[in-house]
Amino acid sequence: MKLITSIREMQDVADELRRQGKRIGVVPTMGYLHAGHLSLIHRAKEHTDTVITTLFVNPIQFGPHEDFDRYPRDLERDKRLAAEAGSEYMFVPERNEMYGAEHYSYVVIEKLTDVLEGKVRPGHFRGVATVVIKLFNITKPHIAVFGQKDAQQALVIQRMVRELNLDLELIIAPIVREPDGLAMSSRNVYLNPEERKQSVVLSQSLQLAQKLILNGERNSAIIIAAMKGLISLQPLAGIDYISVADTSTLQELSQLKAGGSVLISLAARFGSTRLIDNIIMIVQEH
Amino acid sequence: MKLITSIREMQDVADELRRQGKRIGVVPTMGYLHAGHLSLIHRAKEHTDTVITTLFVNPIQFGPHEDFDRYPRDLERDKRLAAEAGSEYMFVPERNEMYGAEHYSYVVIEKLTDVLEGKVRPGHFRGVATVVIKLFNITKPHIAVFGQKDAQQALVIQRMVRELNLDLELIIAPIVREPDGLAMSSRNVYLNPEERKQSVVLSQSLQLAQKLILNGERNSAIIIAAMKGLISLQPLAGIDYISVADTSTLQELSQLKAGGSVLISLAARFGSTRLIDNIIMIVQEH
Repeated sequence: MKLITSIREMQDVADELRRQGKRIGVVPTMGYLHAGHLSLIHRAKEHTDTVITTLFVNPIQFGPHEDFDRYPRDLERDKRLAAEAGSEYMFVPERNEMYGAEHYSYVVIEKLTDVLEGKVRPGHFRGVATVVIKLFNITKPHIAVFGQKDAQQALVIQRMVRELNLDLELIIAPIVREPDGLAMSSRNVYLNPEERKQSVVLSQSLQLAQKLILNGERNSAIIIAAMKGLISLQPLAGIDYISVADTSTLQELSQLKAGGSVLISLAARFGSTRLIDNIIMIVQEH
Repeated sequence: MKLITSIREMQDVADELRRQGKRIGVVPTMGYLHAGHLSLIHRAKEHTDTVITTLFVNPIQFGPHEDFDRYPRDLERDKRLAAEAGSEYMFVPERNEMYGAEHYSYVVIEKLTDVLEGKVRPGHFRGVATVVIKLFNITKPHIAVFGQKDAQQALVIQRMVRELNLDLELIIAPIVREPDGLAMSSRNVYLNPEERKQSVVLSQSLQLAQKLILNGERNSAIIIAAMKGLISLQPLAGIDYISVADTSTLQELSQLKAGGSVLISLAARFGSTRLIDNIIMIVQEH
């Protein structure tokens, strides 16, 4: 696997790959790779000839009191894992290569970013959309693969791709979970053993919601109350939000309708660690 | 010249041209072409194998009380003129093809758009940057040519291209003027004969500023006062602003320094018609 740190060199490599008729897949990451990321690389590999994994802890998507400085990093391990998963290139720019001293240009996605993570983390999705369009312009992919774990991010990028006419295909890959159900995340390493043990309640609460809906519950308030009840049994868990929303608009649904696609998502804190998780369901006739 | 109205078809044509190793030049316009636009097409032609002229009166760059509805249109004439100038393709999308019923994605360029035209026309440059990135993603150019007449627009796009890593080269072509000095503009057709006659004062005021600077004047207030004095001799002219600013930051300069690059720009109304003009100078030692 070849490591590239220069934007110009990465663009030249992408041009040359395209000139040779190769299809390019890109997997944007912030590094500290886990099995979730590797599943994205595998997915990209299935659909393209050459996979570029990007690794950049993007400062402009972190709030002033968030974990940018302590975000976990392990480049040597990431290189090995990405190469083993089949990535041919890893693009690892320095901060100065990506943002000059004065950066004025941003991509903003309205409406979709006023809710959920966007509400709790103002400016987060502006940072995400901006770095993603930059990474697309640098790696020139035919296909880009993102994980469903960051469901709102996936929807925001989908919207950006469509509305700004980026000529590439997006693939949203399913969440990869630990054996006990915890969604894989680079931030899971922050958890102490007791927090780690209690954090399993997040995926359990989503399973509970799923069961309630399969059993015919259509009232979101009841579903959310049941999830809250379950999570609050774990004393270390602090709920940021629990949401039952329409998958495409991210507007809250008070009542579920048959045939509708619903995103059930949550964010919770364990100590200073903030975790998110979600499921997407198509509501069946009951 | 081939007319294309579909985004997908335009992208496919661009892909095929690139596959053949052809270099693509794009000239984005709002139509009603004049000699200024044609000079841009000629310039694109000099540097590329295939020129795509885009023609789209972009609704999102017009304010609610601006001239979107009455903006002059003459597609048959535009087709003929662009073809004669050497354009191989004209991309002419309908509004619905460019913007769906709910459009949430925008490119914003901070700081540079708070002044001059951006101050008088809030949201204008957000509309410009957004449509230009869309047109770039649709036509996939190696080179894009813009006119210096819209100097702030050129700087905003330059910034966007650099900061969002768009892999293309920008060319800013000089202003083309009528024999009496009036900068060519599609909006000049709005002027009645008396307004047209008086409008020549705009370019004359810029020439006056240039002479003052060449003669050693370094105080912007004096330069602006002299320009105002000259323009106010024409009773139909209403000044929106006169600015002496640094070319790269667009911040006002109170004092000119040798070696500095200065943008002298203005906007004025003649009846309901709003015209802009500018010159760029490198200040010499005196």
